[in-house]
Amino acid sequence: MTGHGGNIYRAAEETGLPESRIIDFSASINPLGISRKVEREIIRNIRYLINYPDPDATELRQHLSKHHHINEDSILCGNGSTELIYLIPKALKPKKVLVPQPTFSEYERAVFQNIVPPTHPSPARGEGEGGGGKLIKYLILNKENNFETDPDAFIKAMKSCDMAFLCNPNNPTGGLVKRREVLKIAEAAEKLKCHLVVDEAFIDFCPGDSVIKEVQAYSYLIVLRSMTKFYALSGLRLGYGVFPLRLIEMLNRHKEPWTVNTLAQEAGVAALDDRTYVTKTLALIKKEKRFLEGGFRKIGVRFFHSDANFYLLKINNADGICIALKRKGVLVRDCSNFKGLDSTYIRVAVRTRRENTILLKELLKFT
Amino acid sequence: MTGHGGNIYRAAEETGLPESRIIDFSASINPLGISRKVEREIIRNIRYLINYPDPDATELRQHLSKHHHINEDSILCGNGSTELIYLIPKALKPKKVLVPQPTFSEYERAVFQNIVPPTHPSPARGEGEGGGGKLIKYLILNKENNFETDPDAFIKAMKSCDMAFLCNPNNPTGGLVKRREVLKIAEAAEKLKCHLVVDEAFIDFCPGDSVIKEVQAYSYLIVLRSMTKFYALSGLRLGYGVFPLRLIEMLNRHKEPWTVNTLAQEAGVAALDDRTYVTKTLALIKKEKRFLEGGFRKIGVRFFHSDANFYLLKINNADGICIALKRKGVLVRDCSNFKGLDSTYIRVAVRTRRENTILLKELLKFT
Repeated sequence: MTGHGGNIYRAAEETGLPESRIIDFSASINPLGISRKVEREIIRNIRYLINYPDPDATELRQHLSKHHHINEDSILCGNGSTELIYLIPKALKPKKVLVPQPTFSEYERAVFQNIVPPTHPSPARGEGEGGGGKLIKYLILNKENNFETDPDAFIKAMKSCDMAFLCNPNNPTGGLVKRREVLKIAEAAEKLKCHLVVDEAFIDFCPGDSVIKEVQAYSYLIVLRSMTKFYALSGLRLGYGVFPLRLIEMLNRHKEPWTVNTLAQEAGVAALDDRTYVTKTLALIKKEKRFLEGGFRKIGVRFFHSDANFYLLKINNADGICIALKRKGVLVRDCSNFKGLDSTYIRVAVRTRRENTILLKELLKFT
Repeated sequence: MTGHGGNIYRAAEETGLPESRIIDFSASINPLGISRKVEREIIRNIRYLINYPDPDATELRQHLSKHHHINEDSILCGNGSTELIYLIPKALKPKKVLVPQPTFSEYERAVFQNIVPPTHPSPARGEGEGGGGKLIKYLILNKENNFETDPDAFIKAMKSCDMAFLCNPNNPTGGLVKRREVLKIAEAAEKLKCHLVVDEAFIDFCPGDSVIKEVQAYSYLIVLRSMTKFYALSGLRLGYGVFPLRLIEMLNRHKEPWTVNTLAQEAGVAALDDRTYVTKTLALIKKEKRFLEGGFRKIGVRFFHSDANFYLLKINNADGICIALKRKGVLVRDCSNFKGLDSTYIRVAVRTRRENTILLKELLKFT
């Protein structure tokens, strides 16, 4: 159904390999796997599955509040941050939304789905394509500029919009807009009365650049966070958003009940308490990024600077390479369906030394 | 956030009692708890949480297909059947929807949320209230008629509608429309080109009256099923729907990705295989319903005939009783916020003999 990475179930079906034999570089998940403390907490809470989940995720929001030093009433939890990506345009009904290109494709889908009449056979996309296309203004990130987001260009583009998405660090490029620059954008959004949605799904890998604490100082800044990547809880689904207080009632009015399951709520609480896991993860990713970057250089694969736990690679015949690697049980993300990219790009996650070595060895065959 | 039963977290907070001390009659969940086989399967699959869930729930749909002898392509799984209750009006954008009264309140909320412009301060409700109110046509179920749904009245009311919800057995009354009568309604819906959504969330307690197999014979019949009640998986969230094939693409276009978590998918597969659990549950509920009915009669509490695992009780000062019972850790469902009911109704689930005895003893004090 989705064109995203991480579908090991389909890959297993297509290749005939068991799921356990697949090394997944196509989704950018912490290779340490789930923290043991979180795992124990999941098992301990199975007995409570007979009860509905707390629809308000009270305990988790209290923990998040303490963790980030923010008001618990400004937090909403979601079935992954994906639920919130859909909830925001559904509740706030923007007229024109700024979306960079390339970026995570769900922003655009969420906007079209909630605004374009669904009877429209296939929503027109992009400026000047008429109809639904008028909904989105694209900010093109250029390869020549390493796909970096220029804050001034972002602010300029935001002027005709009442909502803007900024994925930071950006997926699939790994590029980061520094904290100071994000705040400059937030300042401009405030003046323009444009809701700025900063998706910090991968910010745990560069936590100093988060603007989560600043939400309380702005009335048009929204920050989304994911617990599925850094904490390796992809299969359980958990994300949250921090919102200006004035939006909470409107969002709750549009939120479906019981979306965040009990195990996800309890796993989230336990994950926030496990500081050792955080330290270990940051050290591992740092070390393996250095190893991979050295490897890419050695085998002559062009990569873009990344502040996240994945790399965008520029490589000829990317689709052929994806297929060839898949046959060997090595999944990488073909980026040709990202708007603004083409079939000369793949995205690979940072994994363990053993796995990264396999990746480099396999890539070498194509360079 | 919700006005539903089953919020033991809020009850624990309000009463100061630990969650484990609360006996929850307010949500109608299998008192046997989760099947041991399902529990084992959940634990075994924790290791796979590092991967995204299969967005298509392929394995689960295959199992459901075999279980019900239906086409797997006609099945969509949801984060509880609630996700599908919201997805249907969102995707099909009905102009006028028939909703019985009283019934499960999420149908109406889903319709209003997806159709009324969200900038409208508070959606008008009900016929003749103007604006959004024109969206819903209510079919009033009368106390004098034991809140039974008259198939002919349902068909007549459906004539001006392009969508209709039928909760069968009905929540909170427990009343059942027999299979033959549901098919008569489906026949009429077909002729009227009115999408008939039969919510069989509690049909596992009277499985002979399901029309799930008939979906393939109609192009306007939709059947929703829940695995959170009979299989006691409320906290994990799992439901599914069976749809005419012509609607699947449209529904998928509006569905958010990865909504059904991996543990829910695996739990669903294991639950379908556990026939012993099904037999044991049906025997227990049958026995305890007889016990409770005898008890209600003995203490002089009026109950309505129920084909599900709960009873609607008519009792004076229901809100006072709910509060008094809550203080003792006994949660029942105050039904005063169900449209068509008032503060003289409560709903109670069928639980174990020990718990049912406590309920009767506590109710006796108020009769």
